[in-house]
This record gives sequence, C-alpha cells and structure tokens, in this order.
Amino acid sequence: MAFISPSLRLIRLIYPRASFSSSSSTNVKLAGGVSMVQGASRGIGLEFVKQLLEKNERGHVVATCRNPNEATGLLNLKHKFDDRLSIQQLDVTVESTIEECAKSIQERYGSLNLLINASGVLSISDKLQPETTLSKVQKSSLLFAYEVNAVGPILVIKHMWPLLKNGGGSGTERDVAIVANLSARVGSIGDNRLGGWHSYRSSKSALNQLTKTISVEFARKKDPIICILLHPGTVDTDLSRPFQRNVPEGKLFTKEFSVQKLLTIINGAKRQDNGKFFAWDGQEIPWS
Amino acid sequence: MAFISPSLRLIRLIYPRASFSSSSSTNVKLAGGVSMVQGASRGIGLEFVKQLLEKNERGHVVATCRNPNEATGLLNLKHKFDDRLSIQQLDVTVESTIEECAKSIQERYGSLNLLINASGVLSISDKLQPETTLSKVQKSSLLFAYEVNAVGPILVIKHMWPLLKNGGGSGTERDVAIVANLSARVGSIGDNRLGGWHSYRSSKSALNQLTKTISVEFARKKDPIICILLHPGTVDTDLSRPFQRNVPEGKLFTKEFSVQKLLTIINGAKRQDNGKFFAWDGQEIPWS
Ligand SMILES: NC(=O)c1ccc[n+]([C@@H]2O[C@H](COP(=O)([O-])OP(=O)(O)OC[C@H]3O[C@@H](n4cnc5c(N)ncnc54)[C@H](OP(=O)(O)O)[C@@H]3O)[C@@H](O)[C@H]2O)c1
Ligand SMILES: NC(=O)c1ccc[n+]([C@@H]2O[C@H](COP(=O)([O-])OP(=O)(O)OC[C@H]3O[C@@H](n4cnc5c(N)ncnc54)[C@H](OP(=O)(O)O)[C@@H]3O)[C@@H](O)[C@H]2O)c1
Repeated sequence: MAFISPSLRLIRLIYPRASFSSSSSTNVKLAGGVSMVQGASRGIGLEFVKQLLEKNERGHVVATCRNPNEATGLLNLKHKFDDRLSIQQLDVTVESTIEECAKSIQERYGSLNLLINASGVLSISDKLQPETTLSKVQKSSLLFAYEVNAVGPILVIKHMWPLLKNGGGSGTERDVAIVANLSARVGSIGDNRLGGWHSYRSSKSALNQLTKTISVEFARKKDPIICILLHPGTVDTDLSRPFQRNVPEGKLFTKEFSVQKLLTIINGAKRQDNGKFFAWDGQEIPWS
Repeated sequence: MAFISPSLRLIRLIYPRASFSSSSSTNVKLAGGVSMVQGASRGIGLEFVKQLLEKNERGHVVATCRNPNEATGLLNLKHKFDDRLSIQQLDVTVESTIEECAKSIQERYGSLNLLINASGVLSISDKLQPETTLSKVQKSSLLFAYEVNAVGPILVIKHMWPLLKNGGGSGTERDVAIVANLSARVGSIGDNRLGGWHSYRSSKSALNQLTKTISVEFARKKDPIICILLHPGTVDTDLSRPFQRNVPEGKLFTKEFSVQKLLTIINGAKRQDNGKFFAWDGQEIPWS
C-alpha cells in the first residue's frame, strides 16, 4: 500500500468496488459517473469542472490541461473536492499525452460517462490572429488552428472511445455516454454572413464534420455513446476578450450562465440528438 | 528581342496589344479571356484544360501541375494548342511556387478571368488512406489532407486575387471572374449519412467554409469576382478508381461528361451564385 496516496485510500473506503491498481479496474461503475473535461485550466472548461462537481455530489471529474502545476483554478477546486477531482496533463497537440491520460483513466476508473472537449484557440500572439481579410491568411495559422481545434478533440475521442463505450449511461441519469465538443456558431457555413476569421471558422467547420462522421459510426455500431456539438454563446473569457467591443448589450454571457445552459442540454441529450449542433439555448444550429 | 521565345513573338503578332515583358503588361485584356486550371496533370483538371481550349477558340489557359516535365497529357495539348496553353509548375503545399506562378501570369497576361482549383487527394499510399473507422484516424493524415485540399486552394486564390480583380469578366461572356473550387458532396455535413473518410470529408468541409468566407469578402468589396464550389459527381479518374466497385450502374461519369456539365455551370454563373455549392447537374448542395 505504500505507493497508494492517502486520497486513493479514501476513495477505496468510499467506493470499495473501485480498484485503482493498474491490473484490475475495468468495469468499475462509479455511482454518479465519471466525466472528463478536456481544456479545463480556464474559461468555459474550468467552469464545467466546477458545476459538474457542485451539481452532482457523487460525480467524479477528470480535468485535463496542459500545465497542471499552473492551473490555479483547478488546484483551488482540488482543495474543495479532493478525490472527486483528478487533474491530468493533456495537450491536444501531443498525442502521447492523450494516450497517457486514457491509460490513467482506465486504471483509475475503467470507464467514462461524459467527455467535454472545451479546449480551443482563436488568437495566440505570433501564431494565430483572427484574419480580417484573405490577404492576411497564413498557411501556418490555418494549420495551427486546425491541429488544435479540429484534430485535437478528435484524437481525444479516439483514445477515450473504449472508456466511453464501457461507461455508457451507467451511474448517471442518462441512457448513453455523451461526447460534447465545444464548437462555435461561426463554424456554420450557411450562417457565415460576415466573413473573416478564416482559420478559426475553418477549424470549427472541420470539427463539426468530424464530429458528425464519428456520430454516424457510434450509431451504426450501436455504441452507447452520442456526440453533440455546442455553441456556448459569446462568453466572457480570455478567448472572447479582444472581441467583446461589438457584442450587443446583454449578449455577452458569464461563463456561469453559459455552462449552466450547456449542462442542461448535455443532461437532456437523447439518442436522437446524436450528431447535432446546439446553441446555448437548446436551438439546433443548422450547418446551413 | 533576343530573350523572347518564338512562341511569345507569335502571340505578339496575334495580340498586338499584349505585352509580355515584365515591365508593362498589367491590364492586358485578351479577347477570349485567360483561365487558370490548378491541378491539371491528370483527371478532371486535365479535362478542364482540354475543353477550355477546344470550346473557346480565342481563350488562353494557364495549366499548373507539380511536375510539368512528366505531365504528358498537358504536353500533348501543348503540341496542339501551342501559345494558347501555358504550363506552369505549382505545388499547393509549397507557397513559393504559387507566388512564382502568380508573378509569371502577371507578367504574361496581367489578369485572370477564371481560376479552377482541381487538385485534390483522397488516398496516397503511406500518407493518406480513406478511414473506415475512428480507430484508424491518424493525425498526420488529417493534417496532410487539410494542407492539400483546403489550405492549398485558398493560398492559390490569395495570390491570384489581384489578377482576378483585374480580369473580372472582360474578354469573356461573363460579368465577373469566377473562382471554382472542386469540392465533393461528402464534404457536406448534413449529407453525411455513411461516416468514414474522416480526413477527406473534413478537408472538403473546411474548403467549403473557406470558400464561403472568401466569397463574403469579394462581395463586400464589390470585387468583380465570384467563388463557387463544385461537386463533379463520381468521375472515372485515378482518385475514384479504388472505390468504384460500389458505384451504382450509370453513376460513374466519364471526365468528359462531368467537365462538360461543370463548364455549363461555370459559364452560367451569376453574381447571386457567389458562395454556393453546386453538383454537376446544377443542383445546389446544401451544407445540411
Ligand atoms: N468564449 C466564447 O465566446 C466562445 C464562443 C464560441 C465558442 N467558444 C469555444 O468554447 C471553447 C472554450 O473557450 P473559452 O472561451 O473557455 O476559451 P479560453 O478561456 O481561451 O480557454 C481555452 C482553453 O483551451 C486550452 N487549450 C488551448 N490549447 C490547448 C492545447 N493544445 N491542448 C489542450 N488545451 C488547450 C487552454 O489551456 P491553457 O490554459 O493551457 O492555454 C484553455 O483551457 C473553445 O473551444 C472555444 O472555441 C467560445
Ligand atoms: N473523381 C471523383 O469521383 C471526384 C468526386 C468528388 C470530388 N472530386 C474532386 O475533384 C478534384 C479532381 O479530382 P480527380 O478525380 O481529377 O483526381 P486525380 O485524377 O487523382 O487528380 C488529382 C490531381 O491533383 C493534383 N495534386 C495532388 N496533390 C497536389 C499538390 N500538392 N499540388 C498540386 N496538385 C496536386 C494531382 O497532381 P499529380 O499528378 O502531380 O499527383 C492531380 O493533377 C479533386 O479535388 C477531388 O477531390 C473528385
């Protein structure tokens, strides 16, 4: 027992069926379920972690981020929620970190009931600026946004798939496991009336298409998993901060409000919602 | 005159207003117009070059490909059409070749009236295989397909933009210059009922979104250019060859038939078609 941390020992007391050694944990079904929030250091992802822990007293949350040691928001939640929160390192651009994370969830919980991909980039100084015109479009920005916003979440789903299949809806009030990818209304092609933001728009359209493609396979295989896409509204976070000037009065949401709305959608999601794209208010966003 | 090739001298005789020295060629408007076909070594692109040259006796065509010396189809057309066909090297993954090509078109013609982006990849041994399941999705394939199928055509439009603006519809029977990007019905998100082909689907959805985004800017700036997306049908080329087994009787088109249909759409395109996605039969393909 020397290698098992005190907090793991505590979980063993609370969930005696749960085994956290690497050998024998598959098929542990924790009452309250296990949710993973990917991209949880800040903004909407961090708020998801908080509300999931607060609203479901028995639920477990795996929160992933690039730099756990600097994720002060998560570390604060860890003090409060202790063993119900596990913080893991994951960078969507480094596939080995996704695989490591899947392995560790497999060992610790054996299944997942919810995966929220909340990571995303819109502007990063020197790497990505939302383009105002075609003449400013750079190959490196297009590729970077695609890698983070579209490829990243898809690789996460790929590696978490066996865990989600194993989890389904068990331990939760839902019928199925849910994959919720944070997209954006500007990713809708037909809705594109303003132009600009080429790299971001394109990466989110691609994320939408990839999510749809995956949802078709899950349905065909009768896996107990559905995928949905979510538009959170314009939310007051680091991502939107440089662009908040033109947001109409009352249309800039707090992250608390947006995540509350999005959790309502997630918790109410049914099999027939598989592959759909919802705005914060539950309205379906057409691709056109 | 020593540095001007005999063929250039011939063009000077035919089009006395045309100047091909690097100093003074801007605003040359050739009767019959100048069309560029990008991805012209084989398949649909090569057929576009052929039909454009055959159907418009005065039209000029710039055909681009990765390896001009090996492009036997183009070299054969060059024998027949001589100065009306210019073959240029261009690899959509090497931006400098796009810039060089734009410079050379600028010097030679000063404008463009039509740009067809026909290049595309679906399967390349060791690099890209149409995925049959999420578990086979590879990061490298997703990025490669995106770079060739989405980023490539957009960079071509970026660098040809001044030439297209300069060309508009002049010298042709159209009102505006046309950018036609070869997409694919499987890029439509709402139309995705079969799943699979993640890398290709995603890259074509992204191409659709990027084309739409660019079309919005062209319209806002009142540039004399429209962008359209084209689905050629399932066409008997190297690209579709490995997947032709399941094509229903009568649904595998010759490239002659498909390109004839697509040229009808291009020649009939109006300003209000800007940003739209058409199938070979002229039916609009919704994003959903
Ligand atoms: N805010 C809005 O108005 C709005 C509107 C529409 C859609 N969205 C979408 O909602 C999602 C959340 O946005 P937000 O507003 O919460 O953004 P945010 O406050 O900027 O947070 C972005 C998150 O993504 C993470 N991230 C960035 N690159 C990553 C990588 N390579 N690997 C793993 N994580 C990475 C960041 O981690 P670090 O701390 O390590 O950088 C951070 O946790 C995004 O997908 C965004 O596109 C937001
Ligand atoms: N055939 C169909 O059934 C079908 C259906 C839907 C959509 N489409 C689309 O129609 C377009 C034409 O397809 P196709 O059937 O004619 O394909 P194809 O016969 O395989 O020809 C593909 C062309 O793309 C070029 N290409 C590949 N990579 C390139 C790069 N990096 N830079 C420049 N050119 C490059 C190839 O040049 P190299 O000779 O140098 O390789 C070749 O000329 C594609 O965009 C395809 O996605 C085709």
